[in-house]
Amino acid sequence: MKININEVVTRDGLQIEKKIPSTKFKVNLIDQLMDAGVKRFELTSFVHPKYVPQMADAEDLFSEIDRRSDVVLSALVLNDRGVKRAKRTPVDELNITFSLSETHNRKNANSTVSESIQLVRNVLQETIPVNVCIGTAFGCPFEGLYETEQLIPVIESVVEYNPNSISLGDTTGMANPRQVEETCYLIRSKWPEIKLGLHLHNSRGMGLANVLAGIRAGVHDFDTALGGIGGCPFAPGATGNICTEDTVHMLEQMGYETGIVVDKLIQAAKGLEQELGKSLPGQIMKSGKSTATHPA
Amino acid sequence: MKININEVVTRDGLQIEKKIPSTKFKVNLIDQLMDAGVKRFELTSFVHPKYVPQMADAEDLFSEIDRRSDVVLSALVLNDRGVKRAKRTPVDELNITFSLSETHNRKNANSTVSESIQLVRNVLQETIPVNVCIGTAFGCPFEGLYETEQLIPVIESVVEYNPNSISLGDTTGMANPRQVEETCYLIRSKWPEIKLGLHLHNSRGMGLANVLAGIRAGVHDFDTALGGIGGCPFAPGATGNICTEDTVHMLEQMGYETGIVVDKLIQAAKGLEQELGKSLPGQIMKSGKSTATHPA
Repeated sequence: MKININEVVTRDGLQIEKKIPSTKFKVNLIDQLMDAGVKRFELTSFVHPKYVPQMADAEDLFSEIDRRSDVVLSALVLNDRGVKRAKRTPVDELNITFSLSETHNRKNANSTVSESIQLVRNVLQETIPVNVCIGTAFGCPFEGLYETEQLIPVIESVVEYNPNSISLGDTTGMANPRQVEETCYLIRSKWPEIKLGLHLHNSRGMGLANVLAGIRAGVHDFDTALGGIGGCPFAPGATGNICTEDTVHMLEQMGYETGIVVDKLIQAAKGLEQELGKSLPGQIMKSGKSTATHPA
Repeated sequence: MKININEVVTRDGLQIEKKIPSTKFKVNLIDQLMDAGVKRFELTSFVHPKYVPQMADAEDLFSEIDRRSDVVLSALVLNDRGVKRAKRTPVDELNITFSLSETHNRKNANSTVSESIQLVRNVLQETIPVNVCIGTAFGCPFEGLYETEQLIPVIESVVEYNPNSISLGDTTGMANPRQVEETCYLIRSKWPEIKLGLHLHNSRGMGLANVLAGIRAGVHDFDTALGGIGGCPFAPGATGNICTEDTVHMLEQMGYETGIVVDKLIQAAKGLEQELGKSLPGQIMKSGKSTATHPA
């Protein structure tokens, strides 16, 4: 079975890092990851550099990257201004996000949820493919865990505009595998035509277990970040995204196909670790692949 | 469904720590964990203090601990000398281990696998309950991953002596969830009368996913270590045991019953972190429970 990895290291990964890598470093990193076989990237976000200075080079990144015809580059937008900026770049797809949580949406997007949904509905009428990501879809650090049913009206309000995909964001790593499986199963049963993705964080150690829970419910698309870095600057306790190389390693070991070469990911993760000057959360960059043997 | 946690923090947890906590610290830690609801401990190992100085206080620990009638204390032994020492203490159960890997067994126990199995068969004739743990049961860092079938003759050679339980040790965190589920399913099908446990490490991030894979195959008994510390001194790349509080947190969130209070585990883990003077691998001691909310 094919599982699709959407690499978010240069967006969600870097957005809380104090040391901001140069555009050149980001371009080289993406190039390494394309060499490894990654076919989808959330490259950056078009947000105000005052709030997220790590993404200030969004336009430069799009112009300097060495494009490949079989690789999809998307970018995150939160508002009209971001959409306008994105449309002046060669972006393949827009990712637009809002939170199920009023409190988190206010902090992250400075809007009410219904204002954000209206924006999403407007953007979905553009000709470019738009992926809708519902943040804090399983729970919010301010409001607690959600019932799956709370997602239904929110999805209903955007699905008629035919989004390219809908992904559920476990923004602060609160979801457990039972919740992920039940939620994804319910949504896939109700809207089997939707391409449903998962955006998971490993804040409570359940990240890879949640990947498998999603797969059991029929989800084949996952956001991951190299080295397991990342987190939301506007959510307490938000830690790293699920780690690309750890996810790919587990899936390949289990017989799933990702099309990605783990060794090249490990090499890229080590370069990222050196650049950021600190130990990253990824595990197999430290312990190696399960199939790697040591001399006795 | 009830899931049983066997806490190994004072044995597998501490056995590679450079800073060796005092017996008094260990006694207080076990006391805190009993208060939290933990009912089973692998307390220590009776091994030569030259090789594992962290366990040099094995006898003292047994004599100083404040016993509770509903709590089972076991200890690890590797050889006859260890068995003799253990039998002079009030140990409830013996855990005896050998590796599926000749190379690792030689390094860990200084014996061939068949010598170790003969020792196990002898010890199983004692009147005290004996748990058999097969180390490197899924793979070995020197020899690579194993086929499930390789376990069969090894289990056959001990099962006729009625061990109290058999547990499969993923000593260096190499197993993937598919392998764990298939292996446990096969063994449970062949020997449904055996209490089968799992001893997992999180070296490649698959620890909690492997717990759920085990549960799916009918395993209800897991070794865990507070804070996620631990590892084998004689195996390269061996990192922490699966973390007690992260495991209990996930299971309780999913509706399984462990009988253990997560908040008390977090408190104990923070005390351990302070004692060891370094950041521990456990996640929820940093991010808190999924149900804990923050003021907006």
